[in-house]
Amino acid sequence: MSAYSELESRFRRMSTLGEAAGVLHWDRAVLMPDGGAGARSDQLAALAMTLHEMITDDRLPDLLDRAAEDVAGDPWRLANLSEMRRGHIHASAVPADLVEALSTEGLACEMTWREARAKSDFSLVAPKLAGVLALVRQSADAKADALGVAPYEALMDQYEPGGRTAHIDALFANLADFLPDFIETVLAHQGKREDAMPLGGPFPIDAQRALGVRLMERLGFDFNRGRLDISLHPFCGGVPDDVRITTRYDESDFTQSLMGVLHETGHALYEMGLPSDWRHQPVGGARGMALHESQSLLIEMQACRSREFIEFAAPLMREAFAENGPAWTVDNLYHHYTKVARSLIRVDADEVTYPAHVILRYRLERALIAGDMKVDDIPGAWNDAMKELLHITPPDDAVGCLQDIHWYDGTFGYFPTYTMGALAAAQLFAAAHRDLPDIPEEISKGNFAPLTGWMGERIHGRASSASTHDLVADATGAPLGVDAFRRHLTARYLAD
Amino acid sequence: MSAYSELESRFRRMSTLGEAAGVLHWDRAVLMPDGGAGARSDQLAALAMTLHEMITDDRLPDLLDRAAEDVAGDPWRLANLSEMRRGHIHASAVPADLVEALSTEGLACEMTWREARAKSDFSLVAPKLAGVLALVRQSADAKADALGVAPYEALMDQYEPGGRTAHIDALFANLADFLPDFIETVLAHQGKREDAMPLGGPFPIDAQRALGVRLMERLGFDFNRGRLDISLHPFCGGVPDDVRITTRYDESDFTQSLMGVLHETGHALYEMGLPSDWRHQPVGGARGMALHESQSLLIEMQACRSREFIEFAAPLMREAFAENGPAWTVDNLYHHYTKVARSLIRVDADEVTYPAHVILRYRLERALIAGDMKVDDIPGAWNDAMKELLHITPPDDAVGCLQDIHWYDGTFGYFPTYTMGALAAAQLFAAAHRDLPDIPEEISKGNFAPLTGWMGERIHGRASSASTHDLVADATGAPLGVDAFRRHLTARYLAD
Repeated sequence: MSAYSELESRFRRMSTLGEAAGVLHWDRAVLMPDGGAGARSDQLAALAMTLHEMITDDRLPDLLDRAAEDVAGDPWRLANLSEMRRGHIHASAVPADLVEALSTEGLACEMTWREARAKSDFSLVAPKLAGVLALVRQSADAKADALGVAPYEALMDQYEPGGRTAHIDALFANLADFLPDFIETVLAHQGKREDAMPLGGPFPIDAQRALGVRLMERLGFDFNRGRLDISLHPFCGGVPDDVRITTRYDESDFTQSLMGVLHETGHALYEMGLPSDWRHQPVGGARGMALHESQSLLIEMQACRSREFIEFAAPLMREAFAENGPAWTVDNLYHHYTKVARSLIRVDADEVTYPAHVILRYRLERALIAGDMKVDDIPGAWNDAMKELLHITPPDDAVGCLQDIHWYDGTFGYFPTYTMGALAAAQLFAAAHRDLPDIPEEISKGNFAPLTGWMGERIHGRASSASTHDLVADATGAPLGVDAFRRHLTARYLAD
Repeated sequence: MSAYSELESRFRRMSTLGEAAGVLHWDRAVLMPDGGAGARSDQLAALAMTLHEMITDDRLPDLLDRAAEDVAGDPWRLANLSEMRRGHIHASAVPADLVEALSTEGLACEMTWREARAKSDFSLVAPKLAGVLALVRQSADAKADALGVAPYEALMDQYEPGGRTAHIDALFANLADFLPDFIETVLAHQGKREDAMPLGGPFPIDAQRALGVRLMERLGFDFNRGRLDISLHPFCGGVPDDVRITTRYDESDFTQSLMGVLHETGHALYEMGLPSDWRHQPVGGARGMALHESQSLLIEMQACRSREFIEFAAPLMREAFAENGPAWTVDNLYHHYTKVARSLIRVDADEVTYPAHVILRYRLERALIAGDMKVDDIPGAWNDAMKELLHITPPDDAVGCLQDIHWYDGTFGYFPTYTMGALAAAQLFAAAHRDLPDIPEEISKGNFAPLTGWMGERIHGRASSASTHDLVADATGAPLGVDAFRRHLTARYLAD
């Protein structure tokens, strides 16, 4: 067996074991009885340990070196080796006792965070967060040495391979410069029109689900290769041949759940569109969290909150809930789906204000990892940034710096991918629209094939064969930037 | 780390990975979309290979030898080592290429069996079955050498550790001697009474499910540690902290599905009652298939087809389906649940005729493994034995020797555990009744705690710390025999 074949075989095993863990995670979130929690943690830990032993095997570097000669000149196989090496470096760089400590301290801090948030008292969790931060910084330093990048970039690389702060700094500086005034302008503009008429309700869960399924199918979700279920926190799980998205329903408001379903459908279409020839190899997986989020936001924000989509969907909504009043016009439904508001809570934010939340977190977590900010200074820095970017001040820390589980569970370096995804979604949609000018009109007829076909060829089908940078540049003709996003926001929120 | 601790840690990992596979099997049977089948097979194969590598590790024998010194005088830990060694021997005895061939040929034969059964043409599958049988015999020989038992016993040992043909021969000879005439007598006896009045219907699935859940809860099934779902072939899966039983519903007849749910509940109570102190160690698992079946049959046949149970359950049945006609009396419902009939199909057989089906298969598979019978002689031998034991002759092979998937998928040595379980159920119930004379009366009030408490202490809680033989003898005061079963059948089917 060649070194390359040997690696292919090892990584195929790791991929399938990782997928087994994915199904177990889905089961835990969707239908496992509470009593099964301990055994499920044991199962996931056993899989994680088995995978850790395989990926840290010290024979891998030699195999990787020899395999590079086997496949010289073959770009997909070389990219596959790069992804294998990246996985090995991430797993091997951090000593086992530090991994263990991070896991234990992260869990303890998360538990304390729940209490601190309930009591809106940051000081309760500050000492534990300081402990977690110290461990994360050690881990970041170790990975930074091994990868040859800065510590924050090493953390980001876990989610967004190749992500660089210089690039994000430039993107976010542009946004921070533009957004605060733009938000004011949009709010003033929307203030001049009537409030959207309420849609009434209640909306039975069965009817909501049936409408979601109908739209998912139109978007290209294949129910022979996936499911829609319910969980407390919606997510997209499963495997490319069996993609499982979840939602939760609110009988008094169908609009948020429905858009959540369409968002997860965007994630699902990416997974379903990955190249089957490279199934179970690292190069065959999704490129990273920024592009993954770009695909969900492409479907949700670019396609499904467009006026054209509402033109298509409004009759289906009226039919689903047997409604036909004046609140169910395209105009009124479109107003519901494009309402902008300053929110204290990131996960409730609309697409205009969302980047402000992300920029805030990016600034703070970079400073924390660099050692330029102390944990005790988080609440003050948080409130200052909220005031600067969104012109509001949290009344307490529960709706301020205690709102997200990120950080308290030891996760740093993930936040920027949300907004990179939003920028990429706008840029990709604009490029698809330029190449296929009928896309909006086809969406108004419920035909998404032009859009998803274009995306499947340029993004889904290329998987991890190139960097995020190159995939976006090849698809759109330009590096990832802010222009398309600004044009999109301006067109959607100020044109009418 | 002592050798024993090292083994404990390795087998804990194996157990948890095996449980992960169990959850994946459940998911496949209950809710996986068809498109996920390939990926799921890959996941299960990766887990199986990982487990195979761990259990065949050639450092295990030395560790086992050294560990025996660590824990001398500690019966549970010594039993744990025995179970570990047994697992290692089974996995190591058979060369990898034979395992591979058995898996491939078994799958191919199973596919052909489906076609042969549809066409009722045994000759279609005979060559493939002969090929599978040859491989099974090689595997049996290899395991027999390693275990120091006869080839058929080596196969049986996979399902019923320590099972011996001399013992089963004696039990089955007794049954074969007694049953054919007894069946005639019961049929004549039941022929003298009116047929049971039909129960009508349809019976909505929601109402059937609610009734099943209600009875499961009464029996002690903890829904915080388990679920009830639907699958094509009912089974009991999951893990002791999260036991998942399945059923299928027929809107025109609730009685079979309901009894199926109670049967699986018996399996579930065994799993839920295993000692948590020995969780994830081989000694902490269920003893074997005979005792597992004894627990399902204890609940189904001994407890829930008794007149006392029907007295308790009849009002709940009437309430569940809002029925109150003359067909819904205790007498009539009891007649439904104790109807005896000669059946060509094993899985449809009642408890009186079931052992005849098993004895037939045991005789044939022993002869096949011993080389005393050729595959081509199966249909004739089958029909002869049906005539001898049940006094009926299959009109064709589809309802004769092609009816079961066993054999065609490479499974030999499993059949006797069904009837060993029926015998053990009767003997255990009789012993519990002797110790706690109120058990039938408590059952008539819906109180199963005396029965399940007695069983939990003597069977569930002892797990695999002793042999099936010792567990039964300790609990009942006698080795496993036929007497209690005969007395049970006589009392139930000839007394009234």
